[in-house]
Formats: sequence, C-alpha cells, structure tokens
Amino acid sequence: MSQATSYDTPLPLSGERFSARYRIAAKSLEEARAAAQALSVEQTIEFPAELTAGRIAGEVVARVERLEGAGPGVYTAELSFAVELVGGELTQLLNVFFGNASLLPNVRLLRVRLSEGLAARFPGPRYGIAGLRRRLGVPKGPLLSTALKPLGLSPRELADMARRLAEGGIHLIKDDHSLADQGFAPFEARLEAVARALEGTGAVYAPNVTAPGEETLHRARLAKAAGAGAVMVAPGLVGFDRMERFAREVGLPVLSHPAFLGGFVPKGEGGIAHYALFGQLQRLAGADVVIFPHRGGRFAFSQEECAEINAGLKEPFAGLAPAFPAPGGGMKLSRVAEIHAFYGEDLVFLIGGDLYRQGTDLTAAARRFHRAVRGTA
Amino acid sequence: MSQATSYDTPLPLSGERFSARYRIAAKSLEEARAAAQALSVEQTIEFPAELTAGRIAGEVVARVERLEGAGPGVYTAELSFAVELVGGELTQLLNVFFGNASLLPNVRLLRVRLSEGLAARFPGPRYGIAGLRRRLGVPKGPLLSTALKPLGLSPRELADMARRLAEGGIHLIKDDHSLADQGFAPFEARLEAVARALEGTGAVYAPNVTAPGEETLHRARLAKAAGAGAVMVAPGLVGFDRMERFAREVGLPVLSHPAFLGGFVPKGEGGIAHYALFGQLQRLAGADVVIFPHRGGRFAFSQEECAEINAGLKEPFAGLAPAFPAPGGGMKLSRVAEIHAFYGEDLVFLIGGDLYRQGTDLTAAARRFHRAVRGTA
Repeated sequence: MSQATSYDTPLPLSGERFSARYRIAAKSLEEARAAAQALSVEQTIEFPAELTAGRIAGEVVARVERLEGAGPGVYTAELSFAVELVGGELTQLLNVFFGNASLLPNVRLLRVRLSEGLAARFPGPRYGIAGLRRRLGVPKGPLLSTALKPLGLSPRELADMARRLAEGGIHLIKDDHSLADQGFAPFEARLEAVARALEGTGAVYAPNVTAPGEETLHRARLAKAAGAGAVMVAPGLVGFDRMERFAREVGLPVLSHPAFLGGFVPKGEGGIAHYALFGQLQRLAGADVVIFPHRGGRFAFSQEECAEINAGLKEPFAGLAPAFPAPGGGMKLSRVAEIHAFYGEDLVFLIGGDLYRQGTDLTAAARRFHRAVRGTA
Repeated sequence: MSQATSYDTPLPLSGERFSARYRIAAKSLEEARAAAQALSVEQTIEFPAELTAGRIAGEVVARVERLEGAGPGVYTAELSFAVELVGGELTQLLNVFFGNASLLPNVRLLRVRLSEGLAARFPGPRYGIAGLRRRLGVPKGPLLSTALKPLGLSPRELADMARRLAEGGIHLIKDDHSLADQGFAPFEARLEAVARALEGTGAVYAPNVTAPGEETLHRARLAKAAGAGAVMVAPGLVGFDRMERFAREVGLPVLSHPAFLGGFVPKGEGGIAHYALFGQLQRLAGADVVIFPHRGGRFAFSQEECAEINAGLKEPFAGLAPAFPAPGGGMKLSRVAEIHAFYGEDLVFLIGGDLYRQGTDLTAAARRFHRAVRGTA
C-alpha cells in the first residue's frame, strides 16, 4: 500500500552552498550515477527521495553537480550542499561530508570546498605558517622539532631533556603522544616543569592535551597559563571539533597528531584522501602544524600521498591560512636533505628517536640536527 | 657517535595488565615477530627500545605474550600493557590499543581485554540489555525503533510523526543522525516538541546529541530534563570518551550511531575488526544500543561481520553489561523474520525509510512493523 506523500520544509533556503568531491568506484557511468545519487541522499536526508517534494527535494538533498570518468572503473562526483544542513557545527559538517559515507566501501572523500559563510564560521589556523614563524622568530627555513619521551620518565627528567634540546636549537619541543596524565609524569606537573625549563631559551613547548571531554580544553588553558607556547592534540581521539574549539578560544598554536586517525587513510576504494584528511580538514579544524608519517619511516605513506598532504596544507582553501607539514614517524638525520627538498622551506622537521640515538648529550645531538638542516638550505 | 644510555622510570608498577589481540599480515613468522615487537614499542614508548632499561624496558614497553600463525600470511599477536600507561583516561586507552597502529597497513585490532581496574574505571553500559528492557517495559522479544526524518521538517511535524509512530507501538524513536541543530528544527525546540508529543505513549525518544565540544554533554542533560528517555550520539564524530562520559554522568540509555566511524572498518589488512569496533569498544564507552548497517542494505557488511558484532555486544567482557545490536542501514519490513533469526531475541529492529514507504498513515505503518516482528516470535 505505497502512497505518494510529499515531505517538504516550510523554511526558505539562502542558496549558499558548499561542496565535496568524491571518488566512486563503479563498473559503468550508469552505476556511478546511481551511486552518486544515492550518496546525495545518504549524506543529507537518508530518506526515500521519491517521498520528498519542493525545497527538500530540490535544495536539502545534495545536488550532483558533476560526474565524470577518472580512469578504468573510477569516477569523480562533485556534490553540493545547502549551508543550512550544517547549523554552524563542525561535527555536523563532517557528518555531511563523510558521516554515513565512511561506511560505503566504494566512496572516497577527495576534497572539500567551503562556502564563504562556512569559512567565516570556521576561520582555520589562527597562526598558520606565517604566524608561527613570527611567534618563533624564524622568518624562513624549516623549523626543527622533536618529542619528549619515553613514557615512564618523570617531569624533572623530561624537563631536563627539554632544556638540553632547546639549548641545541630545537624550535618546537612537543610531548610524545603517549604522554597523557599518567602517574609517571602527570599532566600539570610535566607542564610546569617543562615550561619552566624552557624559559628564556626561545624554544616553544607543545604539551599533549589529548584528554577526555572538557579536559582537553581545560588542559589547553592550563598550557597557556603556564607559558607553554603551543599545544598538541590528536583529533582522531578527541574529534576535530575539540581541536577547532581550542584553536579559536585558547589562542595557542596547535599541533595535530595522527594517532587514531589512520582508519580514514584510503584503503581499498574507501577512506579520505590524504589531501583532505591531513590537509584540508586539519586546516578547517584550526591546526597550524600537522604531524603525519613521511614515506620510508615506520609507516607506509607513499611519495604521492605525502605530496598530496603538502599541497592540501598549502594550496588556497577558502581564505584559510596554510599550515605546516610535520613529516615524522621514524625520520633520521641522514634524510634531512631529501625531506627538505621534498616539502620545501615551509616545513617542520620532526625527528624523535634518531636524535636520542645520537647519544646522551642531547644538546650536541640537537646541534647536529640543526647543522644538518641549515646545511641543506 | 651512538652511545649506550639507559632511560628508566623511578616509579614501581602494580603488575596489573590489560591486553589486546592483533592480526598481523606478514610473509613469515620471523617477519611477524619483528612486526609484533615493533608494535609493542609503537603503542607504548615510541622510542628506541635499545636505549631503555629496567622498568621501562621490562614493564612499560608492551609485552608480546603470544604470537601464532592464523592462516597463510596471517598471524595473531597478543600484547599486554601495564595499566599505568592509561592514567585512567579513555582517550589514552584507545591510543594504547590502536593510536599509531591505526596508521600501520598490516595491523588490525581484533579484540581487547580489560584488567579489573580498567573495568571498574569504565563500567560500560549503564542499562545494557536487561536495564533497557526494564526501562521500556519489554521483558522479552525484539524492540522496535525508527528514525524521525527527513531533515528539513519542523519540530512540530517531527513531533506529530513521533506521536503517530508511538501510537503504532514503536518502542524507541530516535532522531535521524542528520538532525543536529539546524534552523529547520533547532535541537531544543525539537527536543521539547517530540518529548511532549510522546508523553504518555510509553515510547522513548532518543534525540541526537552529537555536537561540538561540551555541547554534547549539555544536550544530553537537556534531553534528560525534557523527559527524553534516551540519547543518540555518533562516537566517530565526538570521540568515544564523550559518549562514555555522558553514559556515566547523565544516566540516560545511550544509542551509538556509526556515522564517521566507517574509516575503521577493516579494509585491506588494517582497521578494527567488527567484534571490537561495534562490539567491545562501544560497550567500553557505555553504549546500550549500537546501530550499524546490517548486510544486504545500502552498505556492505557481510553476514560474518554482523555475527561478529552480535557476539562482541553480548559475549562476556570484563563484567560489562551486554548491549543491544540495532542493525539498520536500509532494512525492510519484508526482512524482519530473517533479521530476527540472525540476531536472536535481544535485538533492536531499526527500520526507517521502509516504514515511511508504507504510506502517510504512520500509525498503521508502525502496527504493520509490530505485527511483522511479533509474527516472527
């Protein structure tokens, strides 16, 4: 007993639209068109399209603006969305881009395009490349960073290490992402000790504020109060929205760590392309520095994927500031020249373990790192 | 100039350990052993193991407790971790289980095992299957649920639909996950209207509280105050920790929605197995009902994967209550018997679009749904 109804909305829409490009794996153009239409419903009303009418059918359901072949069995579809779908919330914007679509094995999010209103609502990196350079007093050339570790050391030991690394010229000293609020080095004690140790050195400390619930924002505020010059967070664990919030509200530069974000890396035909995942979405959520595994380390990103990240962080994107790539994941001093050439000047070198392998004199190790980078300029 | 150092921790450890089982793709047992050792370092100290000593080397680094072949090119490794690594925070527990490992293409998280202390810290579903049955007054048989949609309708229209669905016997009426805080039906106006419409019907309303930052918790509290009997959230968007927090603090039954969680579904050799992703981790984070796409709908989960979810939600797990599976994603009334047989009695039927396809008389449609389910008992 199916009968025609007509679900419609009483509200007029502004006509402002944003969009996203998807890669669709399909056997034919016809199959791809059906998949794109299904996607336009899935990401918006998730409701039988034939039962809708008027504005819901014409404006609330996403529009397939373009569909074209992109290789054997691969198509790209551009979908546009009414800005009213978002309600100004980053969680819902991500939901529109890739919420249920994340469960579709044949659909990959390639890149996103913001409308002007959305870009005003989510202003992106507060510092970006230029702002972080000003803050660190490093007008050109790559920045040097490393991580305090291993988990298990005390605040005092970590602070001593930080001081010695700073004396060797490291610009950005971050917590290892394994440092949370464990008894070995509780967050506040570690924050106080390391921030104090770095006073007067010119180096900036980025404590890891990845934490449950409101604690993330609370720790970012503590970090600012203690004089830490930046914070690090893993949006895969806390959600992009919490990163975006303290980027806007706390006002410290934000380093984004990739822990628990790897699920979205393209595998098979799904996932979120590196350009969007480690580039655009990070800028959208306010990251000034984005950490990811460079090819040839302990992880498996390809040269092409790393180039995509670099482009996604630096190419024009709705007026949002470009952000620094921080390739890491097992980088060695011996690879500095190659990494520099690959990413260009606007780069945060992140070398952890290999610095510690240089010996107990961390200041000497940091100087070696410094010389290696300057030698490639 | 490498020189031996010995990073160690001054703190004694309790000996309490939890564990996780991983699937490792490798060409040989030797390669698998190397991968498991590398994983034990990656998930804990992320630091050259040869530079550590004493407790860090022996207790902070994860231990490979077992490693065995599981088929051609596939091995399973059981790693154990000191409870002190977690610091009592769910974000860090997930980081230990699969933070950086999410970026490894050859490692899949299969299942987790909590220690007693962790299970006490994260008590899991507050209601679970038995508690939700008591709350709904449905001591046995499947529960019926549906979603309010499409996005675009007003609070009044959604409330009218809810009332008519409840009069037809639907137990759980949730927001579609596309309903956030848009102008069409702002969260608070929708909450008030739907909660009022359901008064006296016996049906429970689960508004979608997926939202940025603290707003998630705030909306869950509003939901409780307004008399909604449950809440829904997408942990993929807000993080498992925010779900866990309001499950504990607000005290309403929690429905977990899979939006933006699909990245972790196994593809290639990586990801998180359905047993852990839609079963154990959801219970760990307090979900009473877990929504996921049943096979044969608009998504691509297999029969085996759905069986894994059912098992992961119901099998003994550190004393945490079992939770309801809510298979959805394009289910039809015509499949009720098959789905019932597959999941058993403890099941939340979730049928959305197909219910609306039955016609404008939603009460009649709901009764048809009810009869279909009772007819299979």
